[in-house]
Amino acid sequence: MPTTVMQDPTARELFDEMSRWPIVDVHSHINPHRPAARNLDELLGYHYYTELAHSAGMPAEHVAAELEPWARARNLAAYLDRLDNTVQYSWLLEIARTFYGWPQDNITPELIDALYDRVGQERDGHGWDSEVWSKTQLETVFLTNEFDDALEGWDTRQYVPCLRTDDLVLKLDETRTVERLRSATNVDVQDYASLRLALGALFEYFVARGARACAISLPPSFAPSRPCPKRAMTSIRRALRSMDLRPDEHDEIRRVIFWMLVEFCADFRLPFDLMIGPIRNIYPNGVAGGRDLFDRRVSLADYSELLNHFRGVTFPISTLAPDASAELVAYAWIFPNVVPLGHWWYSNVPAYIAADLAARLQAVPKTKLVGYYSDAYKLEFILPKFNMYRRVLSETLAADAIRARGWSVDRAVEVARHLLLDNPRRIFCSG
Amino acid sequence: MPTTVMQDPTARELFDEMSRWPIVDVHSHINPHRPAARNLDELLGYHYYTELAHSAGMPAEHVAAELEPWARARNLAAYLDRLDNTVQYSWLLEIARTFYGWPQDNITPELIDALYDRVGQERDGHGWDSEVWSKTQLETVFLTNEFDDALEGWDTRQYVPCLRTDDLVLKLDETRTVERLRSATNVDVQDYASLRLALGALFEYFVARGARACAISLPPSFAPSRPCPKRAMTSIRRALRSMDLRPDEHDEIRRVIFWMLVEFCADFRLPFDLMIGPIRNIYPNGVAGGRDLFDRRVSLADYSELLNHFRGVTFPISTLAPDASAELVAYAWIFPNVVPLGHWWYSNVPAYIAADLAARLQAVPKTKLVGYYSDAYKLEFILPKFNMYRRVLSETLAADAIRARGWSVDRAVEVARHLLLDNPRRIFCSG
Amino acid sequence: MPTTVMQDPTARELFDEMSRWPIVDVHSHINPHRPAARNLDELLGYHYYTELAHSAGMPAEHVAAELEPWARARNLAAYLDRLDNTVQYSWLLEIARTFYGWPQDNITPELIDALYDRVGQERDGHGWDSEVWSKTQLETVFLTNEFDDALEGWDTRQYVPCLRTDDLVLKLDETRTVERLRSATNVDVQDYASLRLALGALFEYFVARGARACAISLPPSFAPSRPCPKRAMTSIRRALRSMDLRPDEHDEIRRVIFWMLVEFCADFRLPFDLMIGPIRNIYPNGVAGGRDLFDRRVSLADYSELLNHFRGVTFPISTLAPDASAELVAYAWIFPNVVPLGHWWYSNVPAYIAADLAARLQAVPKTKLVGYYSDAYKLEFILPKFNMYRRVLSETLAADAIRARGWSVDRAVEVARHLLLDNPRRIFCSG
Repeated sequence: MPTTVMQDPTARELFDEMSRWPIVDVHSHINPHRPAARNLDELLGYHYYTELAHSAGMPAEHVAAELEPWARARNLAAYLDRLDNTVQYSWLLEIARTFYGWPQDNITPELIDALYDRVGQERDGHGWDSEVWSKTQLETVFLTNEFDDALEGWDTRQYVPCLRTDDLVLKLDETRTVERLRSATNVDVQDYASLRLALGALFEYFVARGARACAISLPPSFAPSRPCPKRAMTSIRRALRSMDLRPDEHDEIRRVIFWMLVEFCADFRLPFDLMIGPIRNIYPNGVAGGRDLFDRRVSLADYSELLNHFRGVTFPISTLAPDASAELVAYAWIFPNVVPLGHWWYSNVPAYIAADLAARLQAVPKTKLVGYYSDAYKLEFILPKFNMYRRVLSETLAADAIRARGWSVDRAVEVARHLLLDNPRRIFCSG
Repeated sequence: MPTTVMQDPTARELFDEMSRWPIVDVHSHINPHRPAARNLDELLGYHYYTELAHSAGMPAEHVAAELEPWARARNLAAYLDRLDNTVQYSWLLEIARTFYGWPQDNITPELIDALYDRVGQERDGHGWDSEVWSKTQLETVFLTNEFDDALEGWDTRQYVPCLRTDDLVLKLDETRTVERLRSATNVDVQDYASLRLALGALFEYFVARGARACAISLPPSFAPSRPCPKRAMTSIRRALRSMDLRPDEHDEIRRVIFWMLVEFCADFRLPFDLMIGPIRNIYPNGVAGGRDLFDRRVSLADYSELLNHFRGVTFPISTLAPDASAELVAYAWIFPNVVPLGHWWYSNVPAYIAADLAARLQAVPKTKLVGYYSDAYKLEFILPKFNMYRRVLSETLAADAIRARGWSVDRAVEVARHLLLDNPRRIFCSG
Repeated sequence: MPTTVMQDPTARELFDEMSRWPIVDVHSHINPHRPAARNLDELLGYHYYTELAHSAGMPAEHVAAELEPWARARNLAAYLDRLDNTVQYSWLLEIARTFYGWPQDNITPELIDALYDRVGQERDGHGWDSEVWSKTQLETVFLTNEFDDALEGWDTRQYVPCLRTDDLVLKLDETRTVERLRSATNVDVQDYASLRLALGALFEYFVARGARACAISLPPSFAPSRPCPKRAMTSIRRALRSMDLRPDEHDEIRRVIFWMLVEFCADFRLPFDLMIGPIRNIYPNGVAGGRDLFDRRVSLADYSELLNHFRGVTFPISTLAPDASAELVAYAWIFPNVVPLGHWWYSNVPAYIAADLAARLQAVPKTKLVGYYSDAYKLEFILPKFNMYRRVLSETLAADAIRARGWSVDRAVEVARHLLLDNPRRIFCSG
């Protein structure tokens, strides 16, 4: 049973209805070769737990990669009581209960070995993957694939590929990136023209293997104004040879490649997920996956040239700073190609979701709202995260729409269906 | 009947009381020669519907100016179901029910011709204007008049003129603006001195014809620091002759003229509405009226020199970015001449109003809050917009003041009266 | 009786429990030689009342320092009805009722003399201080001591010293500051080395007399990047002789001294409260204490170098702009040494506290949250301010934790105890 306590019967009715629906998850970091967790460490290793425990006092070394899985789990468990107030902790407990029949109310150092045994050690992978998949009622999960992923070995109608382009835009000056690109495309990338050829080859490869979206996370400092490829040609050549670049050259190269990627999205009719805001590695001594934050001083005004130029490309957008959410509502209200995409990372907290969702439901056409995605690394997290969102959505619709505006339950359900099913399917799965 | 469903009896009692009050609307774009709509197209043509429909997929051409009114209405109706979740849609339905006895729960393509007929085509203008006026219980509506408006042909105690100064500050370098200014004032505007003369003449003309406020909307890039008129004299001469200007000259001229306008507001004892934030035409391919957005990175700190210098001028201020609202609360709490003015445009959504209003009521003296204005282009919209606000105000007072702080209903009503009647009348209508 | 009206029985139960606890107040401006008010003017003189009355129309001269206390009180009372909607007014009424048995529902010009008499004129100081202390159930109150405070004449286990460093960082170029520093430390401060010696002497002096924290308020323009002391040596010498400095020199000196202070915090194991945001004297014509505001365009990203470098120093952080609160949640979630500290000044309004607190409770480990501090100048204000916070905390826990997430009352109480007792004690009072 999910740990759902909803005292408002209308909200409960909405939640129960949504619980019967399949889940379309348009953004995750699931590894399709190993989608569900094989042991407790793969669940507790989710950066939310390691970073919160570290933030609460656990030395980063306690979850070092070289430790045994059970040792990491025990080490982390010693700090879980410090963060048992968080919503992230509640996901963990919901997983333990739903997927492993955990009878306890919490996860303590005394209980951690029992839970470790219950989750199992290297259990039968594929059987378990299927079990989690069906219990979650999954319809499709989008992946986040590196550009040199072979995309082989799984059913891409279930696990839909999505081309992640961070490295191409932000790290083209690293030898490793260029080598990976050459090797993935068999194009001898040396200059602007061959770079374009290689990127085109990537898109072709990805789309042929079922990719339905392109995605990138962009730092606050990035402003995608229209580049001048001609001016950048020399810089690109230098970057491709890993020669030193001036800051303005870096900047120009990033804008050129980003623009080129959007052109390919237009050609291949792919939505381009823009995840705006993270500063990577701002806390280098943190645990793996827990080193990034943001600078809240961002504005979608920096993206207006892009949104105008590529009117045929759909941009599902997530912003990382919770206080930037109102701007996304306004831009989605005006620009046909801007789609508010879920609630991301530091904004993925019920208090922020509730405030933002109420505004989206009041000011953005219902056919444009993509309610939620899990961003999960392991299948097990999809259900508790979606349940968290469905609870907030149920409560918001019950209070703001049904009670305050006199909507019928059916009308509220229809809007929820747009957010959770119709829009994700139409924007990401068709076409 | 308004589509008001309020389950909380205390909120309902407050709302019912406020519904008996007249409406003082201190900012609108009503055309006093044609205040109410003459057909459905004039209602559906409100930019909220065209821009939301366009954002939801309707080509801008479907509501082009050259089409027949009924064709535009039909085209738009085909997209209304995509935005029937929005609060803007609810205004439309409330208008249909309140003013046209519309018996349906929605407005569909199948029903649009029936509604079109019901609203009528070129109905008796003046009779209808009066009917809407009295049903809305209007006391006064402030207009937004271009500086060369003759201000003739209507009762300026009902439709109070307000001098809109956007063009003067932001477009003085356009030949058309200077010509309009010369023609409106009969002053041969050629330099700083004659420009000042002309602006003084405008104020005199406006005030003599009942104007009670000056208004301007300012872009995020505008920072009204104190200008140096002497240094700007040459630039102004060049601008008045439509000669090319450097960006810094544009900037200086804007600040000079703006400062001059505030001096006239001081002399003529007019409040100066500052509407801070819009970037005009950021989406040029949008529908008419649906091309503007904002950059959220604004701060009232940029206005501190102005607020200090003109301590005798009242500045009712609206900010466009919803996340900037807390700053306005703080500035109104400290500066005697800062008045938080309603909830504007992209901030005019119940979720944002509720959050902002709760803070205003807790931290700004009640005598300084101007609750709401309609910003409407047609009289019919004043009632549903004010009702939306009165619902939020009723619910906020019922929850935060009456239930949480033990206020009596009378005390809550008295505060509401300040926001809706006393303050607008004192700040805008007296003096 | 506190003016607490809580209709939700669960929230009421939580509030009643918290009301039995002692209060640990980790930041105030109490004068330990005269902690409680000696007359009504010392209560009404709190800047919240004078600035709100001034903002609502009272000339600043009506509360000038040279007036008699009763005259100031009468003058202010004439404007209190304009701000009786504010939460600050409710603190005053709660003080009147709780500490002076005030039987009325309000404080009017007609009643002000009666209240003045009731509060008394120069009542027996120490007896009254004790009475307020015990009625408030105070455990400890942190002070904010200027660096040249002798720290003598009171029990520093009750009134815990805290080294305020604003002048050292921001005003070292003023002769008065350098003279005070020389005189406080007996160090002939002339250059970088002797400055360091002097600051070390201050820390030694303060810690020896029971100081448990260092504090500073920093303007939005301050970005504490790592300085280069060598490069700054000449500038520091010039500043110490009050010679003219270039803006970049000012900036460098501030960063050098600030960095040095943090090094001493590391050495002496003191938490360093960072109060981020105020622009001082932005409204020079305001009343005393009511001249400061903020620029909301701040980001903790500017502090990342500091947070990384001093991993051993705990930084309790308050941000002044309410819309910056979500960033603090995220930084506290990642950085072990970032502690969200109460709700400060313009953010200390129930509507902002509620929104922020809900997120903190969902996303930051409970062992890291320092719930509240009073920031008070007189003892009497500690209770109503803490009560305000405890009400919001009770309601948030009742709604979000107990009702929405199924927590037991005990579990909610345990979290509240962390915020109000365990964390303040551990972070500030131990070690």
